[in-house]
Formats: sequence, structure tokens, C-alpha cells
Amino acid sequence: MTTQRVAIEPSEAASSASAMMTWQAAHRARVETALDRFLAIPPSVAEGQRLWEAMRYAALSGGKRWRALLVYATAELCGADVAVADAPAAAVELLHAYSLVHDDLPCMDDDAVRRGQPACHIAFGEATALLAGDALQAQAFEVLAQSRMPDPATACALLAKAAGGHGMVGGQARDLSGEVTTMEALEAMHRKKTGALIEAAVMLGAACSASIEHTARAALNRYAAAVGLAFQVADDVLDVEGNTAGLGKTAGKDAAQNKTTYVALLGLQSAKEKMYALSGEARQALENFGIAAWPLKALATQAVVRSY
Amino acid sequence: MTTQRVAIEPSEAASSASAMMTWQAAHRARVETALDRFLAIPPSVAEGQRLWEAMRYAALSGGKRWRALLVYATAELCGADVAVADAPAAAVELLHAYSLVHDDLPCMDDDAVRRGQPACHIAFGEATALLAGDALQAQAFEVLAQSRMPDPATACALLAKAAGGHGMVGGQARDLSGEVTTMEALEAMHRKKTGALIEAAVMLGAACSASIEHTARAALNRYAAAVGLAFQVADDVLDVEGNTAGLGKTAGKDAAQNKTTYVALLGLQSAKEKMYALSGEARQALENFGIAAWPLKALATQAVVRSY
Repeated sequence: MTTQRVAIEPSEAASSASAMMTWQAAHRARVETALDRFLAIPPSVAEGQRLWEAMRYAALSGGKRWRALLVYATAELCGADVAVADAPAAAVELLHAYSLVHDDLPCMDDDAVRRGQPACHIAFGEATALLAGDALQAQAFEVLAQSRMPDPATACALLAKAAGGHGMVGGQARDLSGEVTTMEALEAMHRKKTGALIEAAVMLGAACSASIEHTARAALNRYAAAVGLAFQVADDVLDVEGNTAGLGKTAGKDAAQNKTTYVALLGLQSAKEKMYALSGEARQALENFGIAAWPLKALATQAVVRSY
Repeated sequence: MTTQRVAIEPSEAASSASAMMTWQAAHRARVETALDRFLAIPPSVAEGQRLWEAMRYAALSGGKRWRALLVYATAELCGADVAVADAPAAAVELLHAYSLVHDDLPCMDDDAVRRGQPACHIAFGEATALLAGDALQAQAFEVLAQSRMPDPATACALLAKAAGGHGMVGGQARDLSGEVTTMEALEAMHRKKTGALIEAAVMLGAACSASIEHTARAALNRYAAAVGLAFQVADDVLDVEGNTAGLGKTAGKDAAQNKTTYVALLGLQSAKEKMYALSGEARQALENFGIAAWPLKALATQAVVRSY
């Protein structure tokens, strides 16, 4: 497994590493529990059981839950009750899971491996995978609409914008268009394709609190934009440096498909520098929050220091 | 074009036919305008233009807007401002349009014709059609979440339940399972696959009003359940009696695919009797509303007296 290293101040690293692992494990367990509850197979479902099995397979089979952790960390930073954040944390993971199922379909990326397992359409067939993705998207909005957030309707609008033709799906369509060849176009595409949902995760976390100051919101917006892009540059780097076992998906696909990536445009070394710079920019945006922002800062580091 | 006749009292038919046509034309125009606005191609969209063209192609190329008319008729019956109903009327049509795009895909029904035109994946390719369907679903929730309805979050939850694994997609999965062979299973499947969104249309119309009495809501629920099933039985009848030009989709597919339908289980004559009985049951549920319910009653008649 390839690992990447980034400069972290020794004192910070020593004091926070164990706290971070504890915090992340606890919150990862929270979202797993929430997802398991929101995807409970209803007793009335008999013949439709296979759909629910496919939904659970897609949404509960691993995953680092990095987006859910962004929700929790932001919610706690904004003083919200962590239990209020369960619904938006689960909703962004449901949305993310649906997008992976549809991405892997033969008419899209045609990828047979996901999270180290057969992709949903390999395990359940194309039709069921298509429907499972569709149902996971609906489920994300059901969970959010019924949440205990201060304003669930605004939360639904926020997630819908991030998910739809103005956001994630719009970015995927740009990617498909084959017209992304410049750095500017690549960045615009990724800000939608990957960035929109990551930004939504942060802003949904903030929306768990009834009141948040304008300057705090602006700082979180800057954090979210930088961390979203950092994550994507790291993805491009990992596609070159990682391997299929570590990634849990097929490595080296970008080059094989002649895709425009940060590595292709900048070269590997400059792409890595850019990703570290963006991760630093994300942490920098949180300076005014002080020590309380450490879980979000750690997540910004993890966006680029990972092997998956 | 095959037409079907149903017993309507002559006086009712004479007095209401022209009023009904005027009412429906006006409200169909309203939802077309609303859909056109909600699907306006954002100026920032350059490379993603094809996605938005596919979304507009799928959602704006005809369609009888029967579900939108259910929203408007119910909203007006409940004393709501018709302008408040534009958003839910558009949302159910966006949802319906997405479901048709995904239904027509090769891995599902593999149908090349829809509303008399090439299906979305024939016109735009499979990948873009898949994404257009995904984006239309997100757009439905965005429109509803940002609506002027009294409680947009509850409206989102209502639509999400109707759309997801407990509703429409759950019904499609049952249909796919090949395990629907009895009348009981067929009815349970259709109550989800087609009925859930039709019932949601009626209840979203009611939700445009801030206050609605329990008995009125119960009557609308009975109406919605009966009209949804009537619509589906009529679909099965039309698949036998209609032709491809009139339907705007391929006729005779059910028999060719050996599908369990009302016609297959009951025979053509009994299936037609059942559909007229359900349509009558729907109108009967509205008796206490008096004359004000005529648009909804007319829509219940149209559910079964149609050639498309």
C-alpha cells in the first residue's frame, strides 16, 4: 500500500493522533448505526427484498465515511448536538453511495470493483443497481426532510443543489463531455463533481446549529472549497501512485483512459505540491476557530494523506 | 387511435366538457411554464449543456401532465393559492420524467420510443440519459424544498417516500423480480410502482393548504388510492387495445414479455370492468366535496378514458 507524507508539526501530530483516532472511530460508528437504521428492510417488503439488499450492500459495505465525519466535525464546531447531525451525516453518505453505484455502471465508468468488493451491478445485476442508486438518492432526501435540524427544508435544498445538474451530476456530465482539457475547466469540473457534495457536507454540519455567524460561515466555506479540491487532486495522485488493492477500486484508469487529470496537466510532483497547498489552505481557513477546529483540520490532512 | 367509452351522465358531460377543457389547458400551461423556468439552463453551464438539454428533452417534450393536474385540482379544492401549487406540480412531473428516462434504459425496459419521440438514451446516449434522470430527481427535491408551501420539509418527505424504495422504485423492483404472479401481488406492486406517485400528487396538492380537515384528507386518500390503481389497470388495457402511435410508446409489450397484468389475470373484459369500477370509486370518494370537486372527478374519468 502506498502511503504519502505531509509536513505536520511534531507537537500537533503527537498530541492529536490518538485523540483523532478515538474521535473518528466514535463518529464513524455513529453514522454506521444511523445508516443501518435508515436502511432497515421494512417488514412489508417481500419481493422487493433484493432492492433493499442492494441498497444496503452499496451503502453499508465499508467506506471511510469521510463526508459524514465532515458533517459531524462541523456540527460540533458550531455547537450543535451531535445527535442532530446523524441525519445529514447519513444523508451525504447515502448520496455518495448512490453516485458510486451509478458511476460504476457499464454505460458510465464500467468498473467492476468498488471498496474492494464486486461493484453493485456485478453483485445484483444492472437493473437492480440502477434502481438501488435511484432509491438511495430518494432515501437521502427522506432522511434529511425528517431530520431534527433547525430548518430541514433549507437543508434539503442545499443537498439537492449539490447533488443535481448544478452540482455533482453537472460535474459528471462535464467530465463525460471530453471537453475538459485546460486547468481552468478541470478545476470547474471538479468543484462540481466532487467538491459540491464535500462543501454540502460541511455546510449541512453548520446547518445543524440554529445560529452561526457570518464570518464563521465564510471561513467554513473557504475550508470546504479548499478541502474538496485537495481531495480530488489527491484522487488523481492516488490513481497513479496507489494500487487496486489499497484503493478498493481499479487503479491506473485515468492514464489508461487518457483522462485530463491534475497529474496529466501538472506532472506528478507539481500535482502533489498543489494538493498539500490546498490542504494547508483548508486548515488555514479555520485559524480563528482555535483548538476546537482540530477534527476538521485533521480531516483536511487526511484528504491528502491516505492510501485509498 | 382506440378510444374507450365510459358511462357519464349526459347532463354532467354536456355542462362540464368545455369547462374541463378550459381548466385543464390553463393548468397544463401553468406547469409547462413552471417546468421551463425550473429547467432554465444556467448561464454558467458550458460543457455541461448537453446534460441540461437532455433534462429538458425528457421533462418538456409533451406528456399529458395528468399528475400535475391532480396537484392543482386538489390544491384548489383545498382552498390553496394556485401559484403555491406550481412547485409541487412541477416536482411530481420532474420525478415522473426521471422515472421514464431510467425505465427506458437498455438494462430496464429497453424501450426506444417515448411520448412519440426517441427515448432520451437514444437521443443523448446512455450515460447522459442516466445522469439526466439522476439530475431530474434532485431537481424535483430542490424545487419542492424551495417552494412556498406551508411546510416544504414535510412535502419533501412525502415525495421522497413516494419515490424511493418504499414507493415507486420499490414497486419497480417488485415488477423486475418476476415473482408477481397473483392478483394480490400485482395490486401491491402497482400501488407502489404507479400508485405511490399519484397518491403523492394528490396529497401534495392538499399540502398546499395550511389547514385541511381530517375527513377531507381521508376522502382524498381514498380518491388517490382508487384513481392510482384505475390508471394502472387502464395502462394494461391500453397495452392490448392501443397502438404505438397513439400511446407514444411501444404497444403490446406486456404480452410479448409474458408479463403479469390485469388483462392477463382477469381477461380483457373483466379488466375493463375493474378499471371503470375503480374510476367510479374515486369519484364517489369526493361526494362530500360537492360541485367543487369536478376537476378531480374529471381527472378520475380521464384516468381510464384515454388513448395514450
